[in-house]
Amino acid sequence: MGDQSFVSQATRARVRGIVTPIAVGAGKLGLTPNALTVIGFLISGVAAGAAAAQMWLLAAALVIFGGSFDMLDGGLARAQNRVTRFGAFLDSTLDRWGEGVVYIGIVAGASAAGFVVGAVLAAAAAVSSFQVSYTRAKAESLKLHGEVGIAPRAERLVLLTIGLVLAGLDGGLAAGARGQLWLAATLGIIFATASITAVQRTWHVRSQLRDEEQGAK
Amino acid sequence: MGDQSFVSQATRARVRGIVTPIAVGAGKLGLTPNALTVIGFLISGVAAGAAAAQMWLLAAALVIFGGSFDMLDGGLARAQNRVTRFGAFLDSTLDRWGEGVVYIGIVAGASAAGFVVGAVLAAAAAVSSFQVSYTRAKAESLKLHGEVGIAPRAERLVLLTIGLVLAGLDGGLAAGARGQLWLAATLGIIFATASITAVQRTWHVRSQLRDEEQGAK
Repeated sequence: MGDQSFVSQATRARVRGIVTPIAVGAGKLGLTPNALTVIGFLISGVAAGAAAAQMWLLAAALVIFGGSFDMLDGGLARAQNRVTRFGAFLDSTLDRWGEGVVYIGIVAGASAAGFVVGAVLAAAAAVSSFQVSYTRAKAESLKLHGEVGIAPRAERLVLLTIGLVLAGLDGGLAAGARGQLWLAATLGIIFATASITAVQRTWHVRSQLRDEEQGAK
Repeated sequence: MGDQSFVSQATRARVRGIVTPIAVGAGKLGLTPNALTVIGFLISGVAAGAAAAQMWLLAAALVIFGGSFDMLDGGLARAQNRVTRFGAFLDSTLDRWGEGVVYIGIVAGASAAGFVVGAVLAAAAAVSSFQVSYTRAKAESLKLHGEVGIAPRAERLVLLTIGLVLAGLDGGLAAGARGQLWLAATLGIIFATASITAVQRTWHVRSQLRDEEQGAK
């Protein structure tokens, strides 16, 4: 739930207040919500390329830019009253691809820099982040709720951007550079918090099923 | 559907015929279906360690061994009439972790061997494999079907094992070794077929929603 997350409800409301007019503007330019979803994914692909090329500050800027489309598409769909089930499906699946592709780029950049720990942590962050989304979708496919936890996507995106910026400002991933530590630390935090979130969601599913069972008795 | 997959229905039935008595035997030893699920995941974790240590043949053996528990847990649950919603949830989510952790191990091994392409393809195979599972769970959360496609988990497991065995037999990931080519080729095939499967599932969701819409008119 939002109140467990470290991005507060008030901040979310403020961000939504900024995003909605931009989304409506994009709509006036003729862009559909699904087009915004696809553009956001493509920007994440470019961010991945920047990470692979070890251009960390550019990668950070593109991650945030691509991620903001994630808010725009939903905002436009609501403003235009065009919330569709296919739109929701495309948004969810392309967000996962977008997040995954950025981590693939970081694996490439870290591995090319010979920073094995960074490559491993990037892969671990990708797997655990996916797990957060998967546990929710799987819970919902069983008609249960799964949206609890400390590290949903907005949080992971903020952490990742911080790590990329600090890596870029502090010597990149050259051997011995502090950039290695920054990137490893933020990827490690993403891995840890995403894993905790996935476990929280599993626990939440378990307790819902127990409640149902007791209700049935 | 099974008939699109390259593992035929007959093979599946034969494997199930072998697996069921083993599963029942495990049940007689006092193991629950959920315990088998957890053991399978732990074995995948050991497989990941073997891959990280570049012990490719051991990793291959453990991947197949861990993967076979995936069939045992379901077999035992059916045989004991203990198919529960939490069991299904745990099985699905731990299978994803198990698959993901093996790819993290391959990223580690390939990156440590200086084989950047291998590390990137392992991360790409992980992301695309997750996408296959995610599109299905997301489709089902929208009360749609999502189980179509050419590369479900059994297929990916077979491909991965072949790649690990060939890498192990053909010089590992040393610079210039053919093992590099084998591993890169199989990971590339997993990435390609899993991506196609994810797109097939997206398309399947789209056509189901179109059919619904037309039915509603």
